[in-house]
Amino acid sequence: MAATTSSYSITMRLYTAPDHGVVGAVATAIAQAGGIVTAIDVAESSHERLVVDVTCSASDADHAKLLEAAVDAVAGVEVHKTSDRTFLLHLGGKIEVASKVPLKNRDDLSMAYTPGVGRVSMAIAEHPDDVWRLTVKGNSVAVVTDGSAVLGLGNIGPGAAMPVMEGKAALFKRFADIDAWPICLASQDTDEIVRAVEMIAPGFGGINLEDIAAPRCFEIEARLRASLDIPVFHDDQHGTAIVVLAALTNALRVVRKQLADVRVVVSGGGAAGTAIVTLLLAAGVTDVVVVDRAGALSADDDTLAPAHRELAAATNPRRVTGDLHTVLAGADVFIGVSAPGVLKPEWIKDMADDAVVFALANPDPEVDPAEAEKYAAVVASGRSDYPNQINNVLAFPGVFRGLLDARASEITVDMLLRAAEAIALVVKDEELNPNFIIPTVFHPDVPKAVAAAIRGH
Amino acid sequence: MAATTSSYSITMRLYTAPDHGVVGAVATAIAQAGGIVTAIDVAESSHERLVVDVTCSASDADHAKLLEAAVDAVAGVEVHKTSDRTFLLHLGGKIEVASKVPLKNRDDLSMAYTPGVGRVSMAIAEHPDDVWRLTVKGNSVAVVTDGSAVLGLGNIGPGAAMPVMEGKAALFKRFADIDAWPICLASQDTDEIVRAVEMIAPGFGGINLEDIAAPRCFEIEARLRASLDIPVFHDDQHGTAIVVLAALTNALRVVRKQLADVRVVVSGGGAAGTAIVTLLLAAGVTDVVVVDRAGALSADDDTLAPAHRELAAATNPRRVTGDLHTVLAGADVFIGVSAPGVLKPEWIKDMADDAVVFALANPDPEVDPAEAEKYAAVVASGRSDYPNQINNVLAFPGVFRGLLDARASEITVDMLLRAAEAIALVVKDEELNPNFIIPTVFHPDVPKAVAAAIRGH
Repeated sequence: MAATTSSYSITMRLYTAPDHGVVGAVATAIAQAGGIVTAIDVAESSHERLVVDVTCSASDADHAKLLEAAVDAVAGVEVHKTSDRTFLLHLGGKIEVASKVPLKNRDDLSMAYTPGVGRVSMAIAEHPDDVWRLTVKGNSVAVVTDGSAVLGLGNIGPGAAMPVMEGKAALFKRFADIDAWPICLASQDTDEIVRAVEMIAPGFGGINLEDIAAPRCFEIEARLRASLDIPVFHDDQHGTAIVVLAALTNALRVVRKQLADVRVVVSGGGAAGTAIVTLLLAAGVTDVVVVDRAGALSADDDTLAPAHRELAAATNPRRVTGDLHTVLAGADVFIGVSAPGVLKPEWIKDMADDAVVFALANPDPEVDPAEAEKYAAVVASGRSDYPNQINNVLAFPGVFRGLLDARASEITVDMLLRAAEAIALVVKDEELNPNFIIPTVFHPDVPKAVAAAIRGH
Repeated sequence: MAATTSSYSITMRLYTAPDHGVVGAVATAIAQAGGIVTAIDVAESSHERLVVDVTCSASDADHAKLLEAAVDAVAGVEVHKTSDRTFLLHLGGKIEVASKVPLKNRDDLSMAYTPGVGRVSMAIAEHPDDVWRLTVKGNSVAVVTDGSAVLGLGNIGPGAAMPVMEGKAALFKRFADIDAWPICLASQDTDEIVRAVEMIAPGFGGINLEDIAAPRCFEIEARLRASLDIPVFHDDQHGTAIVVLAALTNALRVVRKQLADVRVVVSGGGAAGTAIVTLLLAAGVTDVVVVDRAGALSADDDTLAPAHRELAAATNPRRVTGDLHTVLAGADVFIGVSAPGVLKPEWIKDMADDAVVFALANPDPEVDPAEAEKYAAVVASGRSDYPNQINNVLAFPGVFRGLLDARASEITVDMLLRAAEAIALVVKDEELNPNFIIPTVFHPDVPKAVAAAIRGH
């Protein structure tokens, strides 16, 4: 059974007999069924019955139903209603717009709106650069998706992508005080997406592309970077790459190896894999092999698709061939951004001593981290229920904070490298160990350190 | 000299001699120069000098300079620095994004973002209608402009339009608790605008078009209404039309005339004029003549542009010709949405008894309301410094509140008529008089009454 998480937390309203011990029996039933009770509130008490709200964590939907049945089976207990806390939290959305100015009386209105606002507009018409100073543009990011590659859920479309983009906007505010708004596009045509983002750009200080499928995402990003005067950042690529490089830097500190000396195998040649490889090469890694479904990408293979041909040309200096198991032999580092279960734990034995394994497929990693730990010196994953979570939240808020602070018109590879170094350095030497190569997302220094690194001073 | 307004409020920091009476001399100097002192704060006091912040209202930029000079001329006073309160208010923008959910710990993150958010996205993928309930879409409006007709300032572009659109978003929140975000488009091509709005529509519950020039705005609105499943409302047209009809309804209550009986002359055949005429006809007005630069529009004139031909076909039943002065003879109502000063006050004498004059050109009306009052029974304008301000803020917040509450897919003429009636009825019989035909925008009943009218129950 998978671990229980708050992402599957339910609250059951129970009608119980007013007997001594019934609440304890409920808690026991939940625990025996593998749930974790996080709160018990008696909402009403009378001689006839108790009304009790029990909140508990389950591992998934089926487990939640099982817990409900277990509670219902307790003598003297009836489950009246079960609510899902995650859904309750989403009712009405997770973000809102707030006015920063008072609008109490006519004077306020005359300054914030007509006629006063006309002078501000004219000032911007005369000095276009003032839009950064006199409007929200200077603190605002568009979180843009076409809904084609949402989390691990695939092509679920722009409407279904909204909760993710809203969550991202909420995180932008929480971690970097940035005003981000979700823009979920009703088209998956590259030309249309590029044009739509170009058109909405005047009101934003940066564009965060999100969950757009490869290879479309590469062209969209490249074209927008060329045409726009604000930075464009595909978080699934560069955010992931920054955090992976930060984590790898510290993992190698743990095992006392150098970036320039290690052999790296990357499983997955999609958006994230490509960006990770590019950043690793820029950071000084020399031996990277990318393995896709068909095996190791090699410049010798002229059947590759254009995006993979470019990747192959920049990697695999020893021109190795074969499947993941073959290629892993002697490798120091495995980085998975591919699919659940593609790495058998015992294959790690064939890697070099003190192997580093990052299994980042979401929600189910390439290898169970607990299994991988038996063979690898350092293990990281995308999961929040194991140590060393590789989480983009460590990067994107600080990245855009720095870009907006600097009023940057573009984002460079040097900035990405500095951001990764900044995250790595938040972990002090005395804190560093195989279970702590990367700071928690709640570490207050992270966004500031990343922003400073992006600004370059 | 035009009236002083808070839209031109300045704060001067003065260094003065510590003498008794110097602050009084400053206040006198400002008053003599036509300014209005609204606040005086002594920020520092020593034996050598006082530091005094004086806030005062001016009528415009030149007047502000004049006030500064007048203060500087006072013996023992030096103006150290002058700040413009309207610009200070705009620094950093007027709106921000706020998270509605706690993001304090990992549990919060697991529900608002990954992995919990994935279940919410899947629920929407399976039941697309749930996007209204589980995301901000159900309370969100895009305020869309191409910057081509901003206030009375003309084609100043999307960046310069931002302060107006942000102000609008702030008003949406203030008056109807709606989460609106400005979308300022970098194109003035009809096809591109239509496509961009179609593409961003999935994340919004309504589209408020704003400050888009005629005749482009007609086609954009018509095409978006046809293609989108959320309501599309061009505020410059329909917001204005609703408030004008509300004001006219009450003006006619004052002069005891009926909508069906009056002769109406509308000066200006642009976006606002067209929408006003359409709504007046739907409300039962039978005799409307539209006058543009070239004179009265008439179905007899086959040289008219397409948009005007349609307008002419629906109006001018008596096929009158001639300029504004000619056409005004015997008219009961003048509605100006055209240009400053086109109506000479004495022409009102040629109108019917108890004439109604709405001079709505912004910022300078067709006729000075104070002059018009000498001849007309009821006068209204767009200005905040005269009674009877025709202000769209009375309409658009409640309109979208009602549309979102009803989860409406379109907005109908019946809704517009009901909204106008609702605004008119906020003014009770005992309150109604020539100087109070329309409620203040701060009247708490207005948005609720309009929303209820839009919902139709």
